[in-house]
This record gives sequence, C-alpha cells and structure tokens, in this order.
Amino acid sequence: MFISFEGIDGVGKSTQIRLAEEYLRSKGKDVICTLEPGGTELGQEIRNLLLHRKGDVAPRAEALLYAADRAHHVATKVRPALAEGKVVITDRFLDSSVAYQGAGRKLSANEVRNISLWAVDGLLPDLTVLVDLDPAIAAERRKSTGEAPDRLEQEKLDFFQAVRDEFLKLAQAEPGRFLVVDATESPAEIFVHIAKKLDELLG
Amino acid sequence: MFISFEGIDGVGKSTQIRLAEEYLRSKGKDVICTLEPGGTELGQEIRNLLLHRKGDVAPRAEALLYAADRAHHVATKVRPALAEGKVVITDRFLDSSVAYQGAGRKLSANEVRNISLWAVDGLLPDLTVLVDLDPAIAAERRKSTGEAPDRLEQEKLDFFQAVRDEFLKLAQAEPGRFLVVDATESPAEIFVHIAKKLDELLG
Repeated sequence: MFISFEGIDGVGKSTQIRLAEEYLRSKGKDVICTLEPGGTELGQEIRNLLLHRKGDVAPRAEALLYAADRAHHVATKVRPALAEGKVVITDRFLDSSVAYQGAGRKLSANEVRNISLWAVDGLLPDLTVLVDLDPAIAAERRKSTGEAPDRLEQEKLDFFQAVRDEFLKLAQAEPGRFLVVDATESPAEIFVHIAKKLDELLG
Repeated sequence: MFISFEGIDGVGKSTQIRLAEEYLRSKGKDVICTLEPGGTELGQEIRNLLLHRKGDVAPRAEALLYAADRAHHVATKVRPALAEGKVVITDRFLDSSVAYQGAGRKLSANEVRNISLWAVDGLLPDLTVLVDLDPAIAAERRKSTGEAPDRLEQEKLDFFQAVRDEFLKLAQAEPGRFLVVDATESPAEIFVHIAKKLDELLG
C-alpha cells in the first residue's frame, strides 16, 4: 500500500502522517515514512540544491530536479519497500510537482505531470490525502513555528493560492485516489476521516 | 549561431572546440564556449552529483538530472548569449542525453529526447558536430591521458558502442543539423571539414 500526503506548506501534514503511521502499525503493518524531496541520500543533495541554495533556479530546471529526486526515490526506496509488502507513506509525491511547478511556476501542468509519471515509471499512490487550507492561514501557521522559511516557502500568497487551487483541481479529477481533508478542523477530527479511508483500504 | 559538439569520451572534442572558437573569433565573431553538464554554477553542482558522487544513480534520475542541468544552462546562459548576437559553442547538448541515457541506459531514446526538448523549450543547435570514433580507440586515448575516469567514463565497451551507434543514428535522422567527422584523421584535417561548414553558416 502506497500513500501520499499533499498540501501547501504549513497545513499540518506531518502531524497526520505521524498519526497514520501509528494507526497502521497498531494494525500490524510494517510502515516506512519517507518524503520528497530528500527521501534518499542523493535526494538530500538535490533537496539542498532546490531549497537551501542561494540564487535562482530556472523553472524548468526546478521541475526536472524534483522529478530526478522522485525517480531515484521510487526506484531505490519506494518500489523495493512495496515489493517487500511494506506500507509506504510519503510526505509529498507527484501531485506536489504538478501544483507547485505546474501552477505555481506557470509551466504546463500536464507536461509536468507527464515528466513525473515518466520519472516513476507510472507508479501512483493507492491513496493521496490532500490536507487543504486557506493559504493565508497556512502562512500564519508557518510564521508561528519560528523556523526560517526555505526558498519555496518565501513565495507570496498568490503563488500558494495557485498551488492550492491546482491541488483541489487534481483531487476533483481523481476522486478515487484523493481524500481531501479540511485543515481548519482539529488534528484529531482530521485523522478520523483518514482512519476511515485507511480502514477501507485495509479491508 | 548555436553549435554543439558531440561524441563519446576521448574522441578529441575539446581540440576541435578550441579550433572552432579561434576560427570564429578571427572572423570577428563574439564567441562563448560552454559545456554540459556544468555550464552554470548550479550545473556544476549537478555535474558533481552525476559524475563524482559515490553510489548509484537510478537511470531515470540520471536522465532527469542531465535535463535539469540543460534547462538551467539554456535559460540562464545560452539563450541570453544568443539574444546578444553571440556565437555559443557547447561541449555536449541534448543528443548526448539521447545517446548516453537513451541507448546507454536502455531507456526510450524518444522519451529522453522529448524530456530534453521540454527542458530547453525547443531550442536546437544550428550545427551539431559529431566527432566519431571506434569506442576501443577512444578508450585507449582516455587511458593515455592519465586522468582518473569519472562515473560514466568507467562504463564498459558495449555501453560506449551503444552510445556511438545512437549518435550515428541521430546524425542520419537529421543530416541538415549534423556534421559527422572521422576522429581517426588528424586534428587539422578534421578541422578543415568543420571550417567549411562554419563558412557555409556564416555566409
């Protein structure tokens, strides 16, 4: 079983991932949690180029670096774990590229998606949880953590608005794969929706 | 005017690039010489990941890292120079990806080409010089330099045979863009063929 969590920065994905991991473990599943970008050693180096380097990255180069990270992540970590019968939970996957580079950077969403699909040789999650929140509220939450924002987190509100809209569009286009949860609810309430979906998948 | 030099490692591309640069300068042209991977600051970091890092890189990740380097190179260096009326000579471009990752890594040559075309938003060279040589001879020449081989140069003979065959196939498919020169000739002889083609382009 392969599960991805998506959403703009600051919506509370990490909390839900931790709860889902605990829940699946309590059901006897062997779970690994991973992330993009940076789920592998090579990916960590790509992540540094993307998020912590000074200087601009051309939009198409940015999209291709995310796809490269994803290709290596899937080939060397996700697919081997799935083949061993593990549940893999990833913090971000292909939909993040479509939303951030497609809509955010104004590249063609469809072209960005096709490149990512090529990167992963067609692998899609069984379940994608979209944690949805108004970008203005998400920005407040990010500020309150006191952590320095990375290169993408420094983008303006209209960037995150475009990214959020694209995520919602993607969810609408694939209702079978997506579960959209409302991040204004409490973490416990949100998790109840996710647990119900996990039960369905397990059953 | 945009010119690329292609060929497997050890065929003598650098010598021909130097001669072409001198020749075009003597004709009053403003020339910049660049390379892939690594023609930009970000590209140098990608180059290090590709060629000087320990550990494997998944084939699709490798192809996407080359494409990312190329996207940034074209957007931030090649296109701006062409827009200023300069002649740009690059040591390797898109055809290297098709030959090395497509044929060498056994990915679909056509898919690798399409990704690179997306990376550069359709930019193709006016002239591509393919410096062609038997891979066994090229291997001998590489050894004689005494330099330590990078990750790709460590590949075996059948890898370079597949890469050479793909280069020749690409040249055959686009005879208007390619000039194939025989690297068993002397550097001066080879350059005479290239100069003739450059004169055509300048005229």
